Amino acid sequence: MTENRQWVLASRPEGEPGREDFRLEEIDRPEPGPGQVLVRTLYLSVDPGMRPRMRDRESYAPSWQVDQPLWARAVGEVVESDHPDWAAGDLVVGRWRWAEYDAVEGESLRPVPLESEPGTALGVLGGTGLTAYFGLYDVGEPTPGETVVVSGAAGAVGSVVVQLARLAGCRVVGIAGTDEKCDWLTDLGAAATINYRDTDDYWDAVEEAAPEGVDVYFDNVGGEITDAVLDNVNDHSRVAVCGQVALYNAEETPEGPRRMYQRTRTRVEGFIVYDYEDRFDVAIDRLRDWYVAGDVESRRTVAEGIEHAPDAFLGLFEGANIGKQLVQVADRGD
Amino acid sequence: MTENRQWVLASRPEGEPGREDFRLEEIDRPEPGPGQVLVRTLYLSVDPGMRPRMRDRESYAPSWQVDQPLWARAVGEVVESDHPDWAAGDLVVGRWRWAEYDAVEGESLRPVPLESEPGTALGVLGGTGLTAYFGLYDVGEPTPGETVVVSGAAGAVGSVVVQLARLAGCRVVGIAGTDEKCDWLTDLGAAATINYRDTDDYWDAVEEAAPEGVDVYFDNVGGEITDAVLDNVNDHSRVAVCGQVALYNAEETPEGPRRMYQRTRTRVEGFIVYDYEDRFDVAIDRLRDWYVAGDVESRRTVAEGIEHAPDAFLGLFEGANIGKQLVQVADRGD
Repeated sequence: MTENRQWVLASRPEGEPGREDFRLEEIDRPEPGPGQVLVRTLYLSVDPGMRPRMRDRESYAPSWQVDQPLWARAVGEVVESDHPDWAAGDLVVGRWRWAEYDAVEGESLRPVPLESEPGTALGVLGGTGLTAYFGLYDVGEPTPGETVVVSGAAGAVGSVVVQLARLAGCRVVGIAGTDEKCDWLTDLGAAATINYRDTDDYWDAVEEAAPEGVDVYFDNVGGEITDAVLDNVNDHSRVAVCGQVALYNAEETPEGPRRMYQRTRTRVEGFIVYDYEDRFDVAIDRLRDWYVAGDVESRRTVAEGIEHAPDAFLGLFEGANIGKQLVQVADRGD
Repeated sequence: MTENRQWVLASRPEGEPGREDFRLEEIDRPEPGPGQVLVRTLYLSVDPGMRPRMRDRESYAPSWQVDQPLWARAVGEVVESDHPDWAAGDLVVGRWRWAEYDAVEGESLRPVPLESEPGTALGVLGGTGLTAYFGLYDVGEPTPGETVVVSGAAGAVGSVVVQLARLAGCRVVGIAGTDEKCDWLTDLGAAATINYRDTDDYWDAVEEAAPEGVDVYFDNVGGEITDAVLDNVNDHSRVAVCGQVALYNAEETPEGPRRMYQRTRTRVEGFIVYDYEDRFDVAIDRLRDWYVAGDVESRRTVAEGIEHAPDAFLGLFEGANIGKQLVQVADRGD
């Protein structure tokens, strides 16, 4: 049995990407070369940050190429290993093709942080949790009593940020797009929420939700919601720019108000989680402790079957997911 | 002889301010009260940061009020003192009315840092130099070998930044509006200059002047020049937002491209020099040493006579000044 399926980029989208930009191919299961491991994919991670890779331009992550496979963070089970660290049955996290099976350098793999819940390696105990952790604590620098506003707050990263800000003693305001999401944010400890789809005036809504002004803004979204938050920042406020999902599908750079950060001495800083790689272990340990103790909870939206991977990805731009969006490709030990 | 003249705000301008927004009044010379000092103004400082004070809105500096006197940083000679620290003939720097004489709290005055050149207390050895010093070193954080771009580079703050960046071992690119200014910047140590009034394509000009990209951008200007610089920033670049003179006269917030700082992890930070007050003494000592040694030079444009104060201020928005713009109100010991 050498059956295998993988997704390739069929075309580069202009503006909104669609199902037609993806193509599922049947291929042979690869043979692991020297030092490689054959993994069977259990979960693939999709995130909005993949959208820029559909463009043909330089970024911190390489572009996807037309007719070539897509790549993702993934969790899998080792089927066959030519690497001394790994044996059949091991659960590993790494980066490989959107495929049912892939041959991966053993060196690039890590054990999943929590064997009983391997999917967390792509969420709260993976890049998602790390992005929240370093973006909030290192870039946002919250102190107890401050007001932290999070956009995209019911998404993968945002929902962890809400909880980490609560743990830091902050008053948290979460912005999301449905009442269901807002209710969940309240459960997670948000003191106020804004359902932006149900709000006529973002400015008033932010002012009401953050009556003492905004000290830290963790931005996953960009665009007009961000404008409203930035109009309400306090002196010496910090803005951690994690993502700008509202802007990713634009072909031309969107226009917006030119900001004058001087009066409030606001610091706006983009960050990329891989810059903090030397402290990943410490952060994962803390996140795992909090997760196991129930101080940080995780929710996911799971698409079943590799054939739904593009839909799961496209749904991110409509806010279809609550918490981390995963694609479950196989069950462990099937 | 109790003659005195002072400028008041005649009206709040909409858009570009004009001469008609100012009115010169003849008033009595004030009597210093307890703890006060009567100063005779030698120099008044005008700077673009005064423009926001013409609006009726909250900022870190109080608004000017219609029919009320304007305020400025100033250098003067003590005429009469009711404060133990000051005696007639002392040269002082402080903040008082745009007037020939004013009664000022003795407590708020400082001696000029360099008696032989009292006007430097408003330029390289005053707020101007301090703004350059803390904005570049604390916010910009340049390291030797990096490329530092300065807009408004031939202005008061900009021309000091160019020199402080050179002292820090950086490659400096200065942006200014005339060839004469650019030539001066080259004399000050700029490796490349851009005359933005003589440039069709800001983007190309920045790319050519900073072929290895921009590590630090010290922005005095805002607007389209800033867009071009921000399109050429390197990873982990820093932007010190000192002023945005191109935007000060706009009634509506101008629109511009929405920036994605994430890819380059750029940090954009507004700052206000008064936040660094506890380190002013150290900075002034260093600036004075450099100035006396000839490592940092200072140039000024001086308007003669208090009647020209509004013209001097309005000229700032046309780039009429090279270096620091001062108004000389009287000669010492006249």
